[in-house]
This record gives sequence, structure tokens and C-alpha cells, in this order.
Amino acid sequence: MEIQDLATPALIVDAVAFSDNLDAMAAALPGSRCRPHVKAHKTTALAREQAKRGHHHFTCATPREMIGMAGAGLGDDLLLANEVVDPDRLRRLAELDARVTVAVDSNETIAAAASAGIREVLVDVDVGCVRCGCRPDDAGRLADEARARGLEVRGVMGYEGHVMGVEDQATRAEQTEQAMELLLAAHGDVGGEIVSAGGTCNFDINTWATEIQAGTYALMDTAYAYADLPFRPALSLRATVISVSDDWAVADCGLKALALDHGNPTVEGATVWFCSDEHVTFAPDKPVKVGDHVRVIPAHIDPTVAKHERMHLVDGETVVDTWEVDLRGW
Amino acid sequence: MEIQDLATPALIVDAVAFSDNLDAMAAALPGSRCRPHVKAHKTTALAREQAKRGHHHFTCATPREMIGMAGAGLGDDLLLANEVVDPDRLRRLAELDARVTVAVDSNETIAAAASAGIREVLVDVDVGCVRCGCRPDDAGRLADEARARGLEVRGVMGYEGHVMGVEDQATRAEQTEQAMELLLAAHGDVGGEIVSAGGTCNFDINTWATEIQAGTYALMDTAYAYADLPFRPALSLRATVISVSDDWAVADCGLKALALDHGNPTVEGATVWFCSDEHVTFAPDKPVKVGDHVRVIPAHIDPTVAKHERMHLVDGETVVDTWEVDLRGW
Repeated sequence: MEIQDLATPALIVDAVAFSDNLDAMAAALPGSRCRPHVKAHKTTALAREQAKRGHHHFTCATPREMIGMAGAGLGDDLLLANEVVDPDRLRRLAELDARVTVAVDSNETIAAAASAGIREVLVDVDVGCVRCGCRPDDAGRLADEARARGLEVRGVMGYEGHVMGVEDQATRAEQTEQAMELLLAAHGDVGGEIVSAGGTCNFDINTWATEIQAGTYALMDTAYAYADLPFRPALSLRATVISVSDDWAVADCGLKALALDHGNPTVEGATVWFCSDEHVTFAPDKPVKVGDHVRVIPAHIDPTVAKHERMHLVDGETVVDTWEVDLRGW
Repeated sequence: MEIQDLATPALIVDAVAFSDNLDAMAAALPGSRCRPHVKAHKTTALAREQAKRGHHHFTCATPREMIGMAGAGLGDDLLLANEVVDPDRLRRLAELDARVTVAVDSNETIAAAASAGIREVLVDVDVGCVRCGCRPDDAGRLADEARARGLEVRGVMGYEGHVMGVEDQATRAEQTEQAMELLLAAHGDVGGEIVSAGGTCNFDINTWATEIQAGTYALMDTAYAYADLPFRPALSLRATVISVSDDWAVADCGLKALALDHGNPTVEGATVWFCSDEHVTFAPDKPVKVGDHVRVIPAHIDPTVAKHERMHLVDGETVVDTWEVDLRGW
């Protein structure tokens, strides 16, 4: 199939950029040094490519992602890097044919995990992200509580998400170190082999974590362009021009097809004016006509992918594969 | 089933508010005076409730919505209020067991519709929305072109979307009138019985259109609160508190579960700080604990619904029905 045969809006993965991104990460953080985060792509076929490069431990954000990865035979070591207290879902995770570890940050999450038959946990530590995670000085107590409940505590995790958006490299490095000091102190109290942290924007800076939870690197956000990383944007949307006026044109790719939380998308060869539900209105640099196609690059990959049923791996003009985005929902 | 049995995040429709909204619209614009827009809910079961109130003509934004509505037996009179040039999709629409009308605004869209076997069209006129639609003074020529191609031209449409966000009622009325003057002038050149326009925010002001394409009214956006309408928010998300810190709490409902293009959601009894992919971080007015549930009200309904597989109709604490959001995608 050729790219011109795809109905639009279509999610396109540049096969070469994608492969280069995966190779670059596998070279920098081989094997279990990288625990790819599947929330960034929600696609088991894509995760399989990461596994082919030697990464067999994965990070998930939702029970659905855990269940789907286990079902796809990618369950060697799955970390749910998120708090869940739903007993039915936890029980389902405990019954998976996979090694399952869940994050806990409170007595309640520990009790829920233990009651559901979960066997292994990481203590999730707040390292400054203003989200989940216990106080660093409470991590040891929680580890004791978890062990008293019969859970195996494999170590700690702490996502320094607040660092990812810091544009200055030196400041990003400094703040990463500060966050990891908190995490390592907690690790001292908790024990276990794992210190799980980090992301695409500091994968090469965070030398304290035993494993990096990088997700974005595979498809890569334009919003991370400042970070001077060895990864390049591999995801775009193919859209069709459906209406042309004297001053602007409209393509069939709106905010139901791409996420705006990091700002407007980029349209190659044009200036984007705004997006509405099913349309992007833009001023083209050169005249376009109805039926032309444009390449739309979303600012934020993760929630964009989650809006689509499938993505197409494209090499030049050829669609070499079509992957179901099979880990959507919760 | 009770609301407490639902896995979170869950899309909740308040059965009473929803029913009141539908009744209010059916009273104000009975029968074909309202052509409900299904893009707002993407749910045939919900459209069926609109049909029960007497609205049997519907507006769609995508081919998928048209096909789904026809398949659900709701195809008495379906308008695709959007430009499509994809020959396969247009052919599929032409073959539906439904009355199908599509919008055209150029020679190219007319040619595509005629070639695919589409029988009926509306000429889409730009009335100031900066999106699709021909110049008002070009509408007559396009109608002639369509008729020369063998298409039946049922009239005109023109969405005055730029008016919906105008908070001052008098200004909104004035701008609606200006937009409809353009549309009526075009209608004079085009002919046909239909003048299709309007939306929830000016459904009672736009007295020039023969039918109003209102969608939001059924579930209702908080972003339209200023407009003093006889509709109230009927849609919310039920989320679970999964982590509590000294200064904030976190619930399992992030930007993959709700749209942020109209701003942050509201959490009842709390101040929202920010959303990330799977979390909302908020400061609760009173202490909350892990496992508590919160009600999250999205600012923009349409793209929020499109992120979910189903919605639950809830009366008090009882889930009275669960509807598949079956018109997602394109």
C-alpha cells in the first residue's frame, strides 16, 4: 500500500527515524537500563520493536496497558508506574501470566495491592513532580508496611517530571541531581535493587537511576526539540486539504485527531492559525488546492496517539506496516 | 449497577439533566427545526433519545458518524456538514440505506460528490468562521455547477462558529444577524428549501435559519455557562483519588480522559492545579483520602467524549444504562 491510499487523518510513523531512535536508545541504555514507557505509544507492535532492541522490561501507566502487554507476550517484567486501588483491576493484574510490579505510595495502595494478590511493588517517591509519590522520609516506613503485608519490595521509583521541561541543559542536570538525591536517600531506607526514574529529556543525564523510564524517544515530541537529543520526530499526521479560501486553507485534522495541551501542531510549509474539532485552519506558504495532502506534526505525541485506532509505518511513499493502537483506554 | 461499581475514569451522564436538556430543545425547536449535531456525543444510543423527542434529521462531521447513524436506523435525513473529497468514503456514503446530503464549497468537492454517486448537497457558505465554506457571492455559481453535474441542491449551510464564544448577548445577536445576512443572500442565489446554521449558543437567536445544527445542548459545556441557556451540564467524569499529599491530591483522570482545549476541568470541592496524561492534581477544599471519588467536569464536551469507549447514564447513584460511544474515529 502507498501512503496516498490512506484515508485521512492518518497517523504516520517515519520508519527510518523511528528505527534510528530505537537504535540510539538501545546503544545508550542497553537492555534493562532502559525500561521503555508504553504510555507514549500504546501499541504492542511498537513495543515489540523495542524488545527486539534488547529492552524486555516495560513501564505502563494503566492496567489496560499492563494487560495488553502481557497478552502480547511482552510480560517479562512489567511495572505499573502508577497508583491503583481498584480491587478488580489489581486482581486481574495479579493473575496475569507476567511478572507484575506496581507502584505504591500510601498505606491504602499497599493494602489494595496485598489484598488483590499482587506480589511485587516499588515505593513511589515524590521527587518534586507534584503528582503521586510519598514524602522521601516516609518511604522506609512504607517499605516496612509493604513487607509486613507480604509484599516483595523491589526498590523505589520517582519521576522527576518537573525537570523534563527545563530548557537549559545545566539547570536540567542540576535539578535531576537534586531529585535523584531525594530518591537515593529514600532508596537507602527502602532497599531493593531498583531505582527507577528519568525520561527521554534526561536519559543521558540521570546516571543515578538503575533504569530509565523513557517513552517519548521512540516517536519523539517537537516540544522536546530544545533538549538536543539523539532522537528526531518520527510521528506525524497525514491530512487532506478540503477547503481553500483566498487567505487560508483547511485540512481534515482537528483537535479530535491531535492533542493541543502542548500547543498547536505544525503544518509543514504553512502557518497554523487554529484547530477546531475536525479541522486545522492554516495559511500556506505557497498555494494549495483541494485534495492536496499536508503533513501535520503534533506538539505532544502521547495523547495524540491515544486518539487513533492505528498507526502506519511508512518508508518513503510505501506503507510497510499498520499497527493497531491496542492499549487505549483504562 | 451502582455508580460506585464503575471503573474509573468513567464518563457519567446525569440522566435528569440530560433529559431536561433534550426536552427544552424539543420544546423550543421542535422536529426538523433542530438538526442535532452528533459530533457532540458520537453515540447512536444518545441520538436515539433525540429522535424520540421528534428530531429525525441529524448533522454529522465525519463519514464514520454518517455510516454509524445509518446503521443504527437513524438515517431519515443525514447531513454531512463537512467537506470530503475521498472517493471511497463518498461512495460508501452514497450507498447507505439513508437519505444523505453532503456539504460542498468548491468545484472539487462538487466533482467528488457527483463522481461518487452522491445525490443531494448543500452549498456551504463562509459566514465568518474562518474555516470551510465558499465566498457568499460564489454560492450561486457553485449551485449551478452542482446542478449541471446532476446533483440536487437542497439549499445552503453556514456555521457562524465565531459567534458562539461571544459572551455579550446583544453582540452575539448582532453578529448572528450579520452572518445570516450573508447566508440568506447566498441562499437567494442558490435556492432550495434549507438554510442550515446555528448552534447551541444562539439556538434561540438565530431565527433566520430553517434548521439549527445544535449539538452541545444535550450534554452541555461549562464553557458556555455565560450564555444563560436553558441547558445545564449533564456530563462529568468520575475519578478515584489515588494519592494524597499534605498540599494536594491526585485523581486518575488526566488529559487522555478529558480535553483541555477549552482549559482545565473543574473538580467539585477543589481547585485544579494541572492535568498530566493520566492524572489531575488538585487542592481539595476539605481533606480527601485515597479511594475517595471526585467529580471532574470537562470544559469541552465534544473532544472529551471522543476519548471514551462508553458513557454511563446515571440517576442518583444508579447506573440506568451504558451507551457505547460508537461513532468515534473517521
